[in-house]
Amino acid sequence: MAETSSSPLGAACPAPLAHHTRVLMAHGGGGRLMHRLIEQTFAAAFDNAALAARHDGALLSVPEGHRLAFTTDGHVVRPLFFPGGDIGSLAVNGTVNDLAMCGARPLALSAAFVLEEGFSTADLARIVESMRQAAAAVDVPIVTGDTKVVERGKGDGVFITTAGIGHLPADLEIGPASVRAGDAIVLSGDIGRHGVAVLAAREGLQFDVPITSDCAPLVAPVMALLDAGLRPHCLRDLTRGGLATALVEIAETAGLAIEIDERAIEVREDVRGVCEVLGFDPLHLANEGRCIAILPGEQVPEGARILGQAAGTSATVIGRVSNEKSDRVTMRTRFGASRAIDMLSGEQLPRIC
Amino acid sequence: MAETSSSPLGAACPAPLAHHTRVLMAHGGGGRLMHRLIEQTFAAAFDNAALAARHDGALLSVPEGHRLAFTTDGHVVRPLFFPGGDIGSLAVNGTVNDLAMCGARPLALSAAFVLEEGFSTADLARIVESMRQAAAAVDVPIVTGDTKVVERGKGDGVFITTAGIGHLPADLEIGPASVRAGDAIVLSGDIGRHGVAVLAAREGLQFDVPITSDCAPLVAPVMALLDAGLRPHCLRDLTRGGLATALVEIAETAGLAIEIDERAIEVREDVRGVCEVLGFDPLHLANEGRCIAILPGEQVPEGARILGQAAGTSATVIGRVSNEKSDRVTMRTRFGASRAIDMLSGEQLPRIC
Repeated sequence: MAETSSSPLGAACPAPLAHHTRVLMAHGGGGRLMHRLIEQTFAAAFDNAALAARHDGALLSVPEGHRLAFTTDGHVVRPLFFPGGDIGSLAVNGTVNDLAMCGARPLALSAAFVLEEGFSTADLARIVESMRQAAAAVDVPIVTGDTKVVERGKGDGVFITTAGIGHLPADLEIGPASVRAGDAIVLSGDIGRHGVAVLAAREGLQFDVPITSDCAPLVAPVMALLDAGLRPHCLRDLTRGGLATALVEIAETAGLAIEIDERAIEVREDVRGVCEVLGFDPLHLANEGRCIAILPGEQVPEGARILGQAAGTSATVIGRVSNEKSDRVTMRTRFGASRAIDMLSGEQLPRIC
Repeated sequence: MAETSSSPLGAACPAPLAHHTRVLMAHGGGGRLMHRLIEQTFAAAFDNAALAARHDGALLSVPEGHRLAFTTDGHVVRPLFFPGGDIGSLAVNGTVNDLAMCGARPLALSAAFVLEEGFSTADLARIVESMRQAAAAVDVPIVTGDTKVVERGKGDGVFITTAGIGHLPADLEIGPASVRAGDAIVLSGDIGRHGVAVLAAREGLQFDVPITSDCAPLVAPVMALLDAGLRPHCLRDLTRGGLATALVEIAETAGLAIEIDERAIEVREDVRGVCEVLGFDPLHLANEGRCIAILPGEQVPEGARILGQAAGTSATVIGRVSNEKSDRVTMRTRFGASRAIDMLSGEQLPRIC
């Protein structure tokens, strides 16, 4: 379907959309105007050999003996720009992080845009530049794409769906099914900032010092663990649903209980303050640059040290997988009580990513 | 980002969205309700081992010595259901066809949904079932996915972005750059039906016999060519922008002129009639199950015979690549005149795929 859009006409003119300041329906029509949009905006920014081939799909090589990881994410965050990131950096980091959570090194990304008629071409160019930078930061090319335009009032500026391919050694088995009793749970840094940053930007909340999203790639921290010979049983980034949802999902799949300690979970004072005022639980807030690594007990504290060092954060051991055959997640609170942790049951903050 | 959505809770209960008849914002919130949506709708339909692993990405193996093809397409077709297909079959066939156009055998698909609050869960289930059938028809699993929900009036029912991975022998070089002077252009069947079928459904046009979309997978026809030892220099499906746009794109990339013969291009009488009344050019109308194969001259007519047989159509040689070093596409008309062919310059029919 994408012969017109997965196949840009090579990277050329840097002018933004040739004197159109708003997206027109015809930018999605498959004709000259769409070609110019692709050529001048996407191909110019994402320039690489696979895109330049102007074909329906990109061709890639996989190292011998490696398996593939494959993932996708739609992005509908509102507002499009927020402290610490925007929909573009989110769309790249979200997908490379999902690959990293498989222990995979990202090989290539795709990007499909649904634009609303009338969307600012300057904002589009800014978002595309943000994607370019985020992709360059992890050295992964955006090799294929697609563009659609919907009528005014049938979309919301821009939605971006990225898919990613990564590769990993065939013997690496990272996932909930590999989790064992006695494993330690390492959290890669403080939690809750992405959720609060997006909420603040949406609602116009002012802070003395702005709270910025933690949006960041997790490729380097994961590769640092693997390169050091450590073998995490499971990795999970803490996006929609937050730390609580990640832990409950893993406990349910593994069929083992998990116990965590609230005092070990870093939440910045300003984030905690917002949560207290608005009634949010930091454990349910979305993050875009934080993960947990579930490591065999003997690989801690080395694992925590390496993870924190590579992420530029203070990673901490926040709990353990118990040998109790249940899927309960419990937390010892700051006050010494024990509290059951569950997924969100309703909706906390829509369109967070 | 998709730990909550790329990782369904295993295929289980067949009940449609547990007594919700409309999509709620909380179906995208990352909590229990989203999990139920994924479990009961997506995981139940797309059931496979990669999905059941409940991880951030799906793990896949690639045959040794093969390269990957990677492609993506967003789907915003309106209406969602039309004679001969719906957004679900389109989303699967569009992406497997892009892989086939690389000479690649599809390995796996991803599917990312942007749902509008209030969208009918029965319609969603119908679309998902259509995707399941289309994927099963070409024996390709949908291994990973994502779900987002936007507020009423910020989307349009459902948008679906699929991405696909395929594999091909490393020495296969199918693409515009491989096109040579003297090559024959084979068209796989009649053109224009998808465009007219969607237009008719949108505008409520009535015909004595309904015009159905040609929406279909092109995997078998391409594999039949390759299995017979034929080596197409280029393959291209004729979606947005139609046959004209595909030929112009190829001529521009190859830097060679193309000459086609209108009399060899099959357009059904009813489709031609609609075009004449509404002022459409069948060469610009979108197709979803038609392609051109550009073959070395000596591989015709065998190539046309095999292509038509596998596609269940009458494939015909419609023209040749000239040795003129220009990027012009010209057509000899039914009346013997010569006409220059160009891409669409404006917009013919929005949201056709």
